[in-house]
Amino acid sequence: MFASINKIKNTLKSMLILGCAVTALTVGEIATAQENQPNVVVIFVDDMGYGDLGTYGHPTIRTPNLNQMATEGMKWTNFYSPANVCSPSRAGLMTGRLPIRSGMQGDGEGLRVLFPFSAGGLPATEKTIAEVLKDKGYATAAVGKWHLGHLPQFLPTSQGFDSYFGIPYSNDMNQVQELTKAGYPDTFFEEPDIRKWNVPLMRDEKIVERPADQTTITKRYTEEAVKFINQKKDGPFFLYLAHNLPHVPLFASNDFLGTSDAGFYGDVIEEIDWSVGQVLGALKDNDLDDNTLVVFTSDNGPWLMFKHHGGTAGLLKDGKGTTYEGGMRVPGIFHWPGKIKPGVIHDIGSAMDILPTVAAMTNSDLPDDRIYDGVDLSPVLFEGKEGGHETIFYYRRHELMAVRYGDFKAHFMTESSYRDDNEYAVHATPYLYNLMVDPSEKYNIAADHPDVIAAIRDIATKHKASVRPVENQFNKVVDFDF
Amino acid sequence: MFASINKIKNTLKSMLILGCAVTALTVGEIATAQENQPNVVVIFVDDMGYGDLGTYGHPTIRTPNLNQMATEGMKWTNFYSPANVCSPSRAGLMTGRLPIRSGMQGDGEGLRVLFPFSAGGLPATEKTIAEVLKDKGYATAAVGKWHLGHLPQFLPTSQGFDSYFGIPYSNDMNQVQELTKAGYPDTFFEEPDIRKWNVPLMRDEKIVERPADQTTITKRYTEEAVKFINQKKDGPFFLYLAHNLPHVPLFASNDFLGTSDAGFYGDVIEEIDWSVGQVLGALKDNDLDDNTLVVFTSDNGPWLMFKHHGGTAGLLKDGKGTTYEGGMRVPGIFHWPGKIKPGVIHDIGSAMDILPTVAAMTNSDLPDDRIYDGVDLSPVLFEGKEGGHETIFYYRRHELMAVRYGDFKAHFMTESSYRDDNEYAVHATPYLYNLMVDPSEKYNIAADHPDVIAAIRDIATKHKASVRPVENQFNKVVDFDF
Repeated sequence: MFASINKIKNTLKSMLILGCAVTALTVGEIATAQENQPNVVVIFVDDMGYGDLGTYGHPTIRTPNLNQMATEGMKWTNFYSPANVCSPSRAGLMTGRLPIRSGMQGDGEGLRVLFPFSAGGLPATEKTIAEVLKDKGYATAAVGKWHLGHLPQFLPTSQGFDSYFGIPYSNDMNQVQELTKAGYPDTFFEEPDIRKWNVPLMRDEKIVERPADQTTITKRYTEEAVKFINQKKDGPFFLYLAHNLPHVPLFASNDFLGTSDAGFYGDVIEEIDWSVGQVLGALKDNDLDDNTLVVFTSDNGPWLMFKHHGGTAGLLKDGKGTTYEGGMRVPGIFHWPGKIKPGVIHDIGSAMDILPTVAAMTNSDLPDDRIYDGVDLSPVLFEGKEGGHETIFYYRRHELMAVRYGDFKAHFMTESSYRDDNEYAVHATPYLYNLMVDPSEKYNIAADHPDVIAAIRDIATKHKASVRPVENQFNKVVDFDF
Repeated sequence: MFASINKIKNTLKSMLILGCAVTALTVGEIATAQENQPNVVVIFVDDMGYGDLGTYGHPTIRTPNLNQMATEGMKWTNFYSPANVCSPSRAGLMTGRLPIRSGMQGDGEGLRVLFPFSAGGLPATEKTIAEVLKDKGYATAAVGKWHLGHLPQFLPTSQGFDSYFGIPYSNDMNQVQELTKAGYPDTFFEEPDIRKWNVPLMRDEKIVERPADQTTITKRYTEEAVKFINQKKDGPFFLYLAHNLPHVPLFASNDFLGTSDAGFYGDVIEEIDWSVGQVLGALKDNDLDDNTLVVFTSDNGPWLMFKHHGGTAGLLKDGKGTTYEGGMRVPGIFHWPGKIKPGVIHDIGSAMDILPTVAAMTNSDLPDDRIYDGVDLSPVLFEGKEGGHETIFYYRRHELMAVRYGDFKAHFMTESSYRDDNEYAVHATPYLYNLMVDPSEKYNIAADHPDVIAAIRDIATKHKASVRPVENQFNKVVDFDF
C-alpha cells in the first residue's frame, strides 16, 4: 500500500528534523508515488440524456461549467452507460463488469432495478472502484444515490467507502399512497412535493431525514462533496458524487427554480451544472486540479415517458429502458488538466472502463477469477493513442438485444420505451446501422452487409457463452418497504 | 457616402506630403468612419442541418474551425432560415424580407424553387445587402450558389455585386438523361460523377466551365473568397460566400474524400469547415478580423430523403421542405472579435436580420415603401441586450403553416418531408409546442393554452393582411434548359 505524497513529505520532514538519514525514498520514487496516486472524482447523474448539455447540442439549457470541463478535457461522443436503467448501470460502473455477471440485471419478466422492498444488492464478492482504491490507501466517499442495495451489507460503507451521505435508491420510490391519487405519471409528477416520496436520506448506515428534503438535495450533495475535498486535500481520495436528479420527480433549490430558459428540467440540469462548477472549483482552490481525474457521465438515457420532465437524447433514438442509442449513449467527459489532452474523441468508451483505468493508473492488480468488460482507457486519455472498445453489448434484462462492433450496430431485437408503443420485435435478419454515419439509427443497411451481420452474430454467441449463471439479486424481495 | 478608412488615411498622407492643412477630418471622425465601415462576410451553406456541426452536437463530424468561431463569437440556438427551401431562403437573406413579398415563393402546386428552365428571378426593385453596401462604397463579391435567377438581369452582377463566380443554381440540376438511368434518388446519387449534372460554372455573366467540376468546387470557392479578401484588404468589402454543398450530389476534394469518421457527408462538411478556417485565417492574416463581421448559417434544414447523403437536424423534428423546426432552424454564428461578446444566445434570429443589421451598422437608410421582416440585431450582438424576433412565420409555398410567438409555436397545418409519409394535415385546433422546453416538438400543449393560440391566430391574421399580391417569379418558365 502506498502512502500519499503528502504523508511521505511529512514523514521526510520529520526524519530530517530528527536528523535521520533519508535513504528509503529518492526524489524519483516520490514522483512515482504521486503519479500513481492521483485523486479520482466520478460525477454520475441520473437519467440525463445525451442531448441535455450545451456542449452536446441542447439549444436552451445552459451548462457553462460542463461546457468548460469538456473544452478543457476530453469529450467522448461514443460513450456508453453499462445498462439502460439505474441499478444495473451502477453495478457496471462500480465493478467494471456487465451487470449480468454480478446478478444485478433483471431476468425474465422480473424487476429491472432494486426497490425499497428488495432484499438483494451488489454481492460482497464484487470488487468496487472504492475497494480498489481503498487498497491503495485512498480516502473514499460516496455522496448521493446508491441503488446497489440499501440493507446494511450492501450500503457504500460495506463496499469500500469510508462514508456515505445520500438517498440509497431512486428519488421516486416510497410513494405515499394517500398523496398519489392524482394519477400516474402525468399529473402526479407535475408539481413535486417532497411528502409524496417518503425516501430516506442516510448518513453512513443511519437514516437522518425522512422524507428527504429533495428541494435542496443537489445543493447538499454538492456541499458534502466540497467538504470532503477540502478535508482530504492532502489526498489521495476517491469521491463518488451520484446526483439523484434529473430523475423524476424534479426538484431544484430556490436559487435555480424558475431561472432556466428551458423550464423545470432546465432548472434542474443547470443546478447540476453549478454543482460541477463547485466541485471543479474546490479542486482548483486546493491546487488539486492537475492531480485529479474527474469523470462526468450519466447512468442511462432520458426517461422520455415523462415528457417535459424528462430529458432529451439529442439526435439519438429513443431513451431510457431501450437498447437504442438514446437508452445507453450518454455524455462522457474526462478532465485532468496537464495530463489529458483536450479534444473530442470518437473512440468507444463505457462507464465500465473507469475501474480498469483507475486500476491501471494506480498499479492495482484486479482479481483474475472474473471477466472484466471494461477496458483501460489510459492509452486514449493519456497517450493520444486509439483505444477503447471494439464491442458494446446492449441488454434488456437478460436478453442481448443488440451488439455494436466498431462502427456497426446490429439489433437482434428492438423495443420502444413508450408505454403506448412498446412493441417488442425479434428480427430474423438484424437491423444494421452504421452509427458513425447514421447516429440516429434511421437507415437499416443490413442487406448491404451480410458479412458484418455474420461477424456480429459470432461475437454475440461467444459473448453469451462467457456469461455464467449467478444468483439474481433483483428477485430477492421482502414483504415490507424499507 | 463614406470612403474607407484606408482611403482616408491615404488622402491624409497625400495632403500632409503636399503640405496641405488638415482640417476636414478629426481623429474622432476617422474613428467613426472606420466604425461604420466594417467588412461583412456572409457564409451561407446549402442544406446543412441544425445538428451537423460539432458545436451543435454532432457526434462524429469534426468542425474545429466552426467550433472555434462559435466559441469566439456568438452562437445562436434559435436562428432561422427565411424559408425551408433554397430560392425563397436566399431571397429572404438578400432582401431582409419574407420571400412571399418579392414573388420568390412558390404558390399553389407550382414550383418551389427556380430551375434551369425558369425565366424569373429576384426583381430589380428589391434592394439586396450588396446594393445597400455598394451605396456605401463597399467592394462586393458573390462566390458560389446564387439561385435567384440565372438570366443576365437576375445574376449577382445585376444585384449589387461587383463580381460573381459560381454555379448559379442547385448542383443537382441539369441532370443528363442518359446518365440518370440508375434511378432516383437512391442509387443515382450514391456515386457522384460530375458528368451527371451538367451545371454551369460562371464568372460574372459568362459560363467558364460545363459541367462544373464539383469535386473541387468547395476548394475553388474558398480560393476565390480568400483572393478577394487579400485584394480588397484596404476595405470596406462585402463577401457573400455561398457554398453549393452539402446539397446533394455530394462532392469532396481529394484532400477530404474518405477522411471523415462520419462518411461522405462528413467529408463534405469537414471541407466546408476547412473553408471557414481559410476565410477566418485570411481575415486574421490581413489584420482585419477585429473589423469584420462574419456570419455563418444555412439556407434550410437537411434533406432527409437522401438518408446518409443528407445531414441531420439534431434533436429538431424533420428537415428541409417542412415547417417543423428541422426545416428552418439552422446554425447561426456571428463572429467579430472585440465587438461581439462571446456567448450562446437563445434570442430568436433569422438570416433576414443580416440586411437590417448591416444597414444599421453602416448608417444606411432603407427604402420606406416596403415591409422588412428582418430586424436589426445590433442590440443583441453589440450591446448585450435582449432583442431579435417576437415572431417567426413558417411558410410552405403560399400557405402560412405555422407561427412562432416567443417560446410558443402553433402549427395550423403540418406536412412531413418524406415522400412515403408526406401526409398533409389541417388542424382545427393548432398543435402547440413550447420550443424552449420542447425543442423537438413532441408534446402538444394546445389544450392548456387557448389564450396563446388565440394570440397567435391574431398575429397570423394581421400578418396575412400585410402580404400584398406580387408577380410570382417561379411560374415564369421557358421551354429550354439554361
